[in-house]
Amino acid sequence: MGLIVQKFGGTSVGDIGRIKNAAGRVMDEKKKGNDVVVVVSAMGKTTDGLVGLAYQAASKPSKRELDMILTTGEQITISLLTMALQDSGYDAVSMTGWQAGIETESIHGNARITNINTDKIKDNLSESRIVVVAGFQGLAGNGEITTLGRGGSDTTAVALAAALKAERCDIYTDVDGVYTSDPRYVKNARKLASVAYDEMLELANLGAGVLHPRAVEFAKNYGVPLSVRSSMEKLDGTIIEEEVSMETGLIVRGVAFEEEIIRMTVFGLRNEITSLSSIFSTLAKHHINVDIIIQSKTETESINLSFSIKREDLEDAIEVLQNNRKELGFTTIEHESGLSKVSIVGSGMISNPGVAAQMFEVLADHDIPIKMVSTSEIKVSVVVDESQMLKAAEVLHTEFNLDKAEQPQKVSVK
Amino acid sequence: MGLIVQKFGGTSVGDIGRIKNAAGRVMDEKKKGNDVVVVVSAMGKTTDGLVGLAYQAASKPSKRELDMILTTGEQITISLLTMALQDSGYDAVSMTGWQAGIETESIHGNARITNINTDKIKDNLSESRIVVVAGFQGLAGNGEITTLGRGGSDTTAVALAAALKAERCDIYTDVDGVYTSDPRYVKNARKLASVAYDEMLELANLGAGVLHPRAVEFAKNYGVPLSVRSSMEKLDGTIIEEEVSMETGLIVRGVAFEEEIIRMTVFGLRNEITSLSSIFSTLAKHHINVDIIIQSKTETESINLSFSIKREDLEDAIEVLQNNRKELGFTTIEHESGLSKVSIVGSGMISNPGVAAQMFEVLADHDIPIKMVSTSEIKVSVVVDESQMLKAAEVLHTEFNLDKAEQPQKVSVK
Repeated sequence: MGLIVQKFGGTSVGDIGRIKNAAGRVMDEKKKGNDVVVVVSAMGKTTDGLVGLAYQAASKPSKRELDMILTTGEQITISLLTMALQDSGYDAVSMTGWQAGIETESIHGNARITNINTDKIKDNLSESRIVVVAGFQGLAGNGEITTLGRGGSDTTAVALAAALKAERCDIYTDVDGVYTSDPRYVKNARKLASVAYDEMLELANLGAGVLHPRAVEFAKNYGVPLSVRSSMEKLDGTIIEEEVSMETGLIVRGVAFEEEIIRMTVFGLRNEITSLSSIFSTLAKHHINVDIIIQSKTETESINLSFSIKREDLEDAIEVLQNNRKELGFTTIEHESGLSKVSIVGSGMISNPGVAAQMFEVLADHDIPIKMVSTSEIKVSVVVDESQMLKAAEVLHTEFNLDKAEQPQKVSVK
Repeated sequence: MGLIVQKFGGTSVGDIGRIKNAAGRVMDEKKKGNDVVVVVSAMGKTTDGLVGLAYQAASKPSKRELDMILTTGEQITISLLTMALQDSGYDAVSMTGWQAGIETESIHGNARITNINTDKIKDNLSESRIVVVAGFQGLAGNGEITTLGRGGSDTTAVALAAALKAERCDIYTDVDGVYTSDPRYVKNARKLASVAYDEMLELANLGAGVLHPRAVEFAKNYGVPLSVRSSMEKLDGTIIEEEVSMETGLIVRGVAFEEEIIRMTVFGLRNEITSLSSIFSTLAKHHINVDIIIQSKTETESINLSFSIKREDLEDAIEVLQNNRKELGFTTIEHESGLSKVSIVGSGMISNPGVAAQMFEVLADHDIPIKMVSTSEIKVSVVVDESQMLKAAEVLHTEFNLDKAEQPQKVSVK
């Protein structure tokens, strides 16, 4: 008997039928004798509907008022799920973010959790009540309603699991686990029984989309065992933890890919010690995320600098750079679109040099030119032409033995 | 320059177009140099939609969880109206009930306001900001979200006007004022320029439907001048205040009517000193509102007792009475449906005896039998057959000179 935190995403509570199905999962866990805290997102398309209304009311709604309207989405779900539990004879209580003691920074739209006052939740758990908490939302010190930004409900669930010292945090979603690659596109993709936090972090950052990286990081920092599982089918999911069941000889654990990558190139940048930091701190100040960076030396006194950004940041990036051209000291900028990023991820790479070389070789063998490269201890990413993204993913998936069935073996990876 | 509280009901904020129209009314008042606090209801059919969801999730949703889900309705409206104001260049801020300092009893579904902590509103007003408050909702001392029950947004508006010592509380609605009778049914019904609190209270209680009686009572107790006006058309509305513009010789100010009245009769009630109080306290305990009561003496030791209730309370009333038959000491109960109540209301009646007699006479002249009668200082109500309700209203409207145009004259009625 322990405490389990369960999280149900928007699709898993998309209509009343699914909410009742989620209630069934909650009751299953409660029947085992566990205390249960449930975190829910807004129902399916509710958030989109509310955002739509906001943009009808104002051409540019303020972030504060967006938080005000969006937080109603989860408030609706917590009450409906609680009603469904009560209707089945279970004692349950719903709590908004502020009622659940979720304290955040005083920032709208993307606040971080600063503290969780668990008193009210604990009081209710001690009376054997199921506690249903609104994800994605919190209360700033100034009494303002805030939201946690994308993936916020995952973060709420993991933060609550950490604060309550939960045995496990189960993320129920519309996929049944973490796969070696996206099964919609890579036919041999297989579900992983387990994956390490760091691997998941790289996969999440690379757009695997199952879990928000902030939530994974939180889980890693506080050692919260996570599981990702299907809300619709009763299947084993994927466990995310520090110590994973390693597969014999499996160095790469997943192949991730992401479309709509833009390569920006800045020409004639002054070759000064602060040039790079100026460029990237200016972009960061405008919330433009830069991924891969390549600096090419030229024979003149100036530098050419390339970096990758997401499609959605292109207009902003061009505007920011042009507005600061003199100050940053460059001559022109260019960009190339129609690119994709393909990455291999695996903790096993740390102790296996040559993985990157093997990747480049197999891509060359299949006539896939590499436009940019970036490496970390457990990841190698390449930027390729969009038309070759899926082919690259397929050949890498095969090359690194991910097509084969898994034979778990417990190995410590950290 | 003063402080105006404006309230917009569900129809007046039913879609984005109407919300923008409401924003226009707010800005008009602000342009005059006034401070403005706005109270809004949930958009049009939102509440019905949420209640529908709740009854899909549970056969009998708990009151606490109903409060949780219903309060999202006003939260959506406050953010949208605030966005619309900001979009027009006005500084505005939205507040939920708990943020606005609306403190209530710890009761779900029908809490009364116990106190309003106006600090946060005043801070924002002092920075010349328009404050948009969610009606119908508050916070109980135990940190629970509560609702104020039917007409709750009217009550919020009036309570805020009282607490903030507002100059006026304007209730914007889908009718343009208070009428001498319901203009949908009584062709000669005219809009009143002003009406006294007590008259409005009787009219509201009689189903005139424009303003909730609790809000009128609050306004009367705190001397808050109210006005009822159209949110769509820019017309003078009706002022509700202590001192009204009396019309020469106009004793009756309005004719109200209400369908679906049930006459219950309890036979063979023991003729004891506690018999009546037992019956009515038992009904009250089950939230069954009894209106007109008639006790007829019989020659035996028992009493026959008739009283009127609303159609919606019939099943409950029968069940409660039957379950307590022995204890209450009666033999049988009967009920008659298909009845209506028609009432004349006017402060002028206090000093004009014979108004009731005049009413009975005109009804008799038109062959309308009276089934029950009840009188107060400013009201006479009769129960008649449903088929004769409108005819009764019409003849009374004419009899008491309400068909004629108004010629206001300032007279104190209290």
